[in-house]
Amino acid sequence: MSEQTVWTDVDLTAERLKALRHQVWQANMDLQRHNLVTFTWGNVSGIDRKSGLVVIKPSGVEYSDLSAANMVIVDLQGRIVEGDMNPSSDTATHLELYRQYPDIGGIVHTHSPQATAWAQAGRAIPALGTTHADYFYGQIDCTRALSDKEIAEDYELNTGKVIVETIGDGDAMAAPGILVKEHAPFTWGKDPHQAVHNAVVVEVVAGMALQTLQINSGVSSINPSLLDKHYLRKHGANAYYGQTKK
Amino acid sequence: MSEQTVWTDVDLTAERLKALRHQVWQANMDLQRHNLVTFTWGNVSGIDRKSGLVVIKPSGVEYSDLSAANMVIVDLQGRIVEGDMNPSSDTATHLELYRQYPDIGGIVHTHSPQATAWAQAGRAIPALGTTHADYFYGQIDCTRALSDKEIAEDYELNTGKVIVETIGDGDAMAAPGILVKEHAPFTWGKDPHQAVHNAVVVEVVAGMALQTLQINSGVSSINPSLLDKHYLRKHGANAYYGQTKK
Amino acid sequence: MSEQTVWTDVDLTAERLKALRHQVWQANMDLQRHNLVTFTWGNVSGIDRKSGLVVIKPSGVEYSDLSAANMVIVDLQGRIVEGDMNPSSDTATHLELYRQYPDIGGIVHTHSPQATAWAQAGRAIPALGTTHADYFYGQIDCTRALSDKEIAEDYELNTGKVIVETIGDGDAMAAPGILVKEHAPFTWGKDPHQAVHNAVVVEVVAGMALQTLQINSGVSSINPSLLDKHYLRKHGANAYYGQTKK
Amino acid sequence: MSEQTVWTDVDLTAERLKALRHQVWQANMDLQRHNLVTFTWGNVSGIDRKSGLVVIKPSGVEYSDLSAANMVIVDLQGRIVEGDMNPSSDTATHLELYRQYPDIGGIVHTHSPQATAWAQAGRAIPALGTTHADYFYGQIDCTRALSDKEIAEDYELNTGKVIVETIGDGDAMAAPGILVKEHAPFTWGKDPHQAVHNAVVVEVVAGMALQTLQINSGVSSINPSLLDKHYLRKHGANAYYGQTKK
Repeated sequence: MSEQTVWTDVDLTAERLKALRHQVWQANMDLQRHNLVTFTWGNVSGIDRKSGLVVIKPSGVEYSDLSAANMVIVDLQGRIVEGDMNPSSDTATHLELYRQYPDIGGIVHTHSPQATAWAQAGRAIPALGTTHADYFYGQIDCTRALSDKEIAEDYELNTGKVIVETIGDGDAMAAPGILVKEHAPFTWGKDPHQAVHNAVVVEVVAGMALQTLQINSGVSSINPSLLDKHYLRKHGANAYYGQTKK
Repeated sequence: MSEQTVWTDVDLTAERLKALRHQVWQANMDLQRHNLVTFTWGNVSGIDRKSGLVVIKPSGVEYSDLSAANMVIVDLQGRIVEGDMNPSSDTATHLELYRQYPDIGGIVHTHSPQATAWAQAGRAIPALGTTHADYFYGQIDCTRALSDKEIAEDYELNTGKVIVETIGDGDAMAAPGILVKEHAPFTWGKDPHQAVHNAVVVEVVAGMALQTLQINSGVSSINPSLLDKHYLRKHGANAYYGQTKK
Repeated sequence: MSEQTVWTDVDLTAERLKALRHQVWQANMDLQRHNLVTFTWGNVSGIDRKSGLVVIKPSGVEYSDLSAANMVIVDLQGRIVEGDMNPSSDTATHLELYRQYPDIGGIVHTHSPQATAWAQAGRAIPALGTTHADYFYGQIDCTRALSDKEIAEDYELNTGKVIVETIGDGDAMAAPGILVKEHAPFTWGKDPHQAVHNAVVVEVVAGMALQTLQINSGVSSINPSLLDKHYLRKHGANAYYGQTKK
Repeated sequence: MSEQTVWTDVDLTAERLKALRHQVWQANMDLQRHNLVTFTWGNVSGIDRKSGLVVIKPSGVEYSDLSAANMVIVDLQGRIVEGDMNPSSDTATHLELYRQYPDIGGIVHTHSPQATAWAQAGRAIPALGTTHADYFYGQIDCTRALSDKEIAEDYELNTGKVIVETIGDGDAMAAPGILVKEHAPFTWGKDPHQAVHNAVVVEVVAGMALQTLQINSGVSSINPSLLDKHYLRKHGANAYYGQTKK
């Protein structure tokens, strides 16, 4: 084209949302590829921070029927902005996390079996080795149970609130996942792809942790120096794992 | 065709049975796709309530040899109406459930390993989290053992009867599956597809429940309010999960 | 061909051995398909009872390099009759079983993990449910440990002998498999295909049995009436499972 | 070519390194094929003893992006000789083992889940059966924990040193793998392919050993005579397993 393209804000937002739809759809499909979901028991969302709009999986749709086109777009108050289908029934949980933690760019919820077992047991997953320490700077917390009132009214919103309450003064990005008691894990990251990555990590370390306790029920948590070493060689200013710092 | 097609009752029944043959064959193949069966250790049936005829897998035939055409059709008294092969050896169990519960449209029996372990242990699978509560409105019961007499005479019919006895005044559709002690699970649903779906659920929650108890042997069942919330957001008049209620 | 073919005994034996080579090769490949082997840790053999010749997998050859042509043929004394490679290092164990039990037509040895765990634990797998009872008429025995002398001299032959000793007066075909202590399972059947089938059964019931004990450590063995019922509905004069009796 | 090719030492080294690049790349891909790695949590290296150069996987690169061409070549002091990417963050551990044990030709590090559980538990994997004895002449040791100082300074080098300390006067090739406490397994072999093979063995026997203890918590280690028999029928002067000795 010889004419100069003038990009308006509206155009730019539309472009970003189009890309995000594709990322969120891809991340949902990746849940299945990583064997984290049975049937439709999982959902991924991503946020466009500039517009404050969230792209999320529609509720109860089979993975084979998902496409970038049928992802639902909602605003941070949960109003549907684009899409013909209901958004995930867990949308209110996702939105609470996006509202509270500006660094979160993507969120995943699954019922992956080994992490779900820890959530059902109401136990945090202790940091027992470097696999865990490479991603989580300490244990993977488990929330308290919701009260009857919290369940009866705005259940999904309250699920988000109890996650926020559990994180408390902690750094949400340094422990990018949590177990909701009697329920299942939620994970997050800077984008939907990283949130899925962390969902895999939670499932793997959940399984390893149970086996570790079965081998040695008296095992103690990882040496804090080793936790520091592994977390910080992958994260933060002096990270040296991978190719980015070369 | 320019001529008007006149559908007789006989034609309509034949059409429905043709469709049901295909559904039951597909559901049997789905057992394999979901890794619920070893060899031929599973069977699915479906009923056409208008004619009272049941389509069921033939006995001991390998999955690779199954087709819609070789499904067997029996009436509710177990008489073969169509088919050259023996129906599943568990046919009498299926028929007893169809006779007792008019809402059941499909039945599945498998020896899926984790659910079978609970059946062998003679223990109900407790409702420990929302994965369970999304499908079963309470624990997944385990029957009593059959008596020597019940085993010796009409074993398969008595297997159906002990399932009915265990359900008692319960709502068969609100807990669409059961463990037969020293044997394995049976599940059901409004159609064969849903019965298979519930067979997957039983296998998954069986595995999660054992792991949960291994992490925390003192865990208690899910908060009844949370059980209500999850079961009722997917089932009943006010369900809001998925796309149907929009 | 217009001329009449005259089959000599030699021709007939060659034809039968050719077919058996193919069966034994196929059965070896099936071990891999059923996820029973890591690397080359498994072997299948079959016997031609008329000639007394045994076809067996060569030792330590990768599954991708196996073919019907490179199966080794040995006589019941272990002398190589055909083949350029060493037969399985466990050949002497197979031969002892063929010599002692004329009904055995095929033998399988694997290190399938769940059955091997029971063998390493030195425990028989108890009959805890109908999955087990459909194939094994009682527990799956575990041999005693071999003595130092038995290990030092003719180890593989003595492995066969301790299996025979453990079976004692029992019916080898009614419990078509055994665990060799500190080692792994051997199974057998009327032909190589059935021996592989039984190897799968042993692996599956081994896993189920451990899980059953983890759920209920005080569980007792299956009611003998139910064991009878399930074993006999698949085996013996009055069997009614499958299509053969119709 | 009609002219005589004159191979200089430089040419020969280049040829060997080219072949080694391919072997190391292939061995890295095999980790994935054997289900030993999640994401990029594993690495393989190989050494060319004549030149003292080591080929190793680049750090944090996805398996789908690996190629023989992007393997990194370092010398035994860790200086990059060829390659545009950072070598594995665990390179210093590999190099320490190559410096100490001249028979080692390939090294593997993974976080395979069952072996990692034993490492996290800080327990050696006992030799409980012949599967283990076929490859490891005794238990698979677990190192002591590193001190805070060892973690803070030259962590990866000290990981190598604590492995060497644990092996002590032992024969590194007779127990070709070890667990690093709170971390994960390292294995080795005469070449990268064999190191991967041993990584699979460690994962399989780790899983079997836990199950064995769950079945019989009082089990004792394998009879030393049987350990000898199985190890020595595959290794050493009188080995008779496989085809090489015929």
